[in-house]
Amino acid sequence: MSQTVEPKLARGLRDLLPEQMLARQEMINTIRSVYELYGFVPINTPAIEFTDVLSGSAGLEIQQSTYKVLAPEDDLLGLRFDLTVPLARVICQYKDLQRPFRRYQVSSVWRADKPGPGRFREFTQFDIDSVGVPGEVADTEIIAAICDTLKALKVGGYLVKFSSRRLLNLLLRYSEIPESRAEDVFRVLDKLDKIGLKKVRLELTEGYVDESGDPIPGLGLQNEQVDKIEEFLALSSDDRRELIDKVSNIFEGVKRSEEEIATVAKISDQLYALGYDNDQVRLDLSLARGLAYYTGPVFEAVLTDAPQFGSVFGGGRYDNLVRRFINESIPATGASIGVDRLLAALLELEKIPLRKSTAKVLITKMDNKLLDDYLQMTWELRRAGISAEFYLGSGRNIGKQLKYADKCGIPIALICGGNEKEMGVVTLKDMEVGRRLSEQIMDREEWREERPGQVEVKRENLVDGVRKMLADIEG
Amino acid sequence: MSQTVEPKLARGLRDLLPEQMLARQEMINTIRSVYELYGFVPINTPAIEFTDVLSGSAGLEIQQSTYKVLAPEDDLLGLRFDLTVPLARVICQYKDLQRPFRRYQVSSVWRADKPGPGRFREFTQFDIDSVGVPGEVADTEIIAAICDTLKALKVGGYLVKFSSRRLLNLLLRYSEIPESRAEDVFRVLDKLDKIGLKKVRLELTEGYVDESGDPIPGLGLQNEQVDKIEEFLALSSDDRRELIDKVSNIFEGVKRSEEEIATVAKISDQLYALGYDNDQVRLDLSLARGLAYYTGPVFEAVLTDAPQFGSVFGGGRYDNLVRRFINESIPATGASIGVDRLLAALLELEKIPLRKSTAKVLITKMDNKLLDDYLQMTWELRRAGISAEFYLGSGRNIGKQLKYADKCGIPIALICGGNEKEMGVVTLKDMEVGRRLSEQIMDREEWREERPGQVEVKRENLVDGVRKMLADIEG
Repeated sequence: MSQTVEPKLARGLRDLLPEQMLARQEMINTIRSVYELYGFVPINTPAIEFTDVLSGSAGLEIQQSTYKVLAPEDDLLGLRFDLTVPLARVICQYKDLQRPFRRYQVSSVWRADKPGPGRFREFTQFDIDSVGVPGEVADTEIIAAICDTLKALKVGGYLVKFSSRRLLNLLLRYSEIPESRAEDVFRVLDKLDKIGLKKVRLELTEGYVDESGDPIPGLGLQNEQVDKIEEFLALSSDDRRELIDKVSNIFEGVKRSEEEIATVAKISDQLYALGYDNDQVRLDLSLARGLAYYTGPVFEAVLTDAPQFGSVFGGGRYDNLVRRFINESIPATGASIGVDRLLAALLELEKIPLRKSTAKVLITKMDNKLLDDYLQMTWELRRAGISAEFYLGSGRNIGKQLKYADKCGIPIALICGGNEKEMGVVTLKDMEVGRRLSEQIMDREEWREERPGQVEVKRENLVDGVRKMLADIEG
Repeated sequence: MSQTVEPKLARGLRDLLPEQMLARQEMINTIRSVYELYGFVPINTPAIEFTDVLSGSAGLEIQQSTYKVLAPEDDLLGLRFDLTVPLARVICQYKDLQRPFRRYQVSSVWRADKPGPGRFREFTQFDIDSVGVPGEVADTEIIAAICDTLKALKVGGYLVKFSSRRLLNLLLRYSEIPESRAEDVFRVLDKLDKIGLKKVRLELTEGYVDESGDPIPGLGLQNEQVDKIEEFLALSSDDRRELIDKVSNIFEGVKRSEEEIATVAKISDQLYALGYDNDQVRLDLSLARGLAYYTGPVFEAVLTDAPQFGSVFGGGRYDNLVRRFINESIPATGASIGVDRLLAALLELEKIPLRKSTAKVLITKMDNKLLDDYLQMTWELRRAGISAEFYLGSGRNIGKQLKYADKCGIPIALICGGNEKEMGVVTLKDMEVGRRLSEQIMDREEWREERPGQVEVKRENLVDGVRKMLADIEG
């Protein structure tokens, strides 16, 4: 007996079994179809990149969690941690790419973070980005695409929130905070949802001690400055137009305020004109989004029926995308979906069905002598476009086969023994009705007597009979 | 000016730009739909596996080309080099997986081999496998699925060749070669297509010196033994039934020959019964397939219109799949597609269109004052299910915009300037007709005079007009 290897995965990694994969594929196909309707095109990049290509754009935390890869040439390589860095590389590497370049990419990314519930080290991102478009129309389009995607996914209630880094820059000017403090201040503002206004205020001024006794240092702003920030953050309205008016009022006279506010107003107006109303898209002045690289509008989406999942879409404008590769600014705006999180939310909300099988019909095996008939029926259904599976397990125990159909979620079982063959018929069994009416009966194998949810069809009407039963089942 | 990083990829890696990706997605979707019609279900496994999980099943060459990966825990990790090893791990790791387990997986695999033209270090495999089915019906189904897939891909002529390792075992008995020599002998037989019968004969006996002067050692078989091998290999017929009769004749009286041949005959008969005739599936006695782990039927497929691409499908039965993880035999059979090679063949044969865009209509920008109208038209088309793109580039040069549509392969350009707006019409331009008739005219921007391939439709009939033109174009 040879030594065996334990079949297991390394820390933070997981498999996706059929049930998860079928739901995920359905979700991804829906998202893809919306993006293609918008004329976005797919690219794919390798998992492995040079470490110096990967380094730089992301924060230190992400850099440190990059998986290193060893190749025969001793190059310094790593697994990509997002899809934005590869996009920036592609833009700079292929000079003859058409611009505007509007691409989507759905791929795995890797981060060797501390894993936790729902947090894995390999996960999937689905990004769309418009590269080479300075105007706000590109941002409008991304926000609209987010709405259309969530609608196509039938998620129920959702809200796309947007704001602009430029409003926050105005706020700095209004509060007389030097631009050099911008990143620190935005980082604290970004916590508003999590820690509340009171703690934000303390962190902006003298600091505080948190519940676990750790001192949280303050930024040392003046109370007067924070009053102005608070005044800005207190502005709110479910009506975008109204809120923009309020913003214009308090920033009146601040340098470049008209111009910065105009961009936000244009996006809002274009969205109104296209039918994306206040119930779908809202201006949210507290929205900062952590990453330092955003330069203009920022957006995120939440599911109002499942707010506990946080933001399922996030993005914004980042006009310095390619700075690390070429000394040039190329405007870009886009959004990213955390596929795993969105799928978890959809499953929680029961907005996407869990199924373990693609087959609609299980052709059961009652009599080995009828093997040729079973194969004929299986292929007849397949050729009619109906996904069908002939039971390939051992034995002819009908109870076992029906349980297999049940466990796999195959909606119809086809039963044909010697009697049926002689009479030129087959029995179709609606598994759901069968299960509902007679779980015990199925176990006792008395299904032949009771036959709940079963119909007999002539052998030559097999395809029509299955179609009819499927139509009834799928309503 | 800060130091920049060169935007490039490491050795043997490549990007897939939209043209390649759109073709690849179309191909993958077609394959997936056939497999799902058969009731196969998807799984996904992480790219990273423990090295001891990866080691063992593959040859030394593949082991050596495995990319190593470093994780924070200092685990010994590597990138998967195929999808069969992860399948074996999954089967052993999840005890409650339904069996028969019939799964497909399409994913990247990595091998740090010496790259060459068309050979990359990250490439995609598309596998189907039936696990837990000892009977030949599972093999029949895999062969049928290969045929149906190639048919669905509209590859033109194809041929699925099959044989069985067990026929080769009979051949060993017939030629009185000990089983311990099996692997060496099969390895040489596998070269038949490449080096021809004469050299195979020499390599089986005393060896020879090849064209570059290298000595190829011989296996030292007797001439009598090789005569018998040659007698077997000389058997051929385009008719499966006839060839099986010939095989039965020469192996008459060899131990277990009836039983071994019966399996091949059953597969052939089932395929005949299901309509897979000699023109699609052939028995090919020279088929050995390199990998030592095959235990029964083996198969591969070639495109008869593009034989230079070699085998585009390969597989067989491998009943010792999980031996490394558990001391148990679990029967399995399946096939793998080299996605990159098959795509290259389909593109070479022009069986799959190359397109750079998903958009059917480019809404051009003639007049900045009409921005709202352009957006309305764009969304009107999208909401009617027609993929549309509003030109987001800078400037209003119509020639530049038409060239963009042309380069992206967008079939229709929509033109609406102040005049059209006033008259309540829009102009639809069939880009292909335009290009065919008037390449020079377009360059000279005299398109307004000649208007080849252009029609004017009323603004309110926009969607219908586009639908009609698309129907004409797509014929």
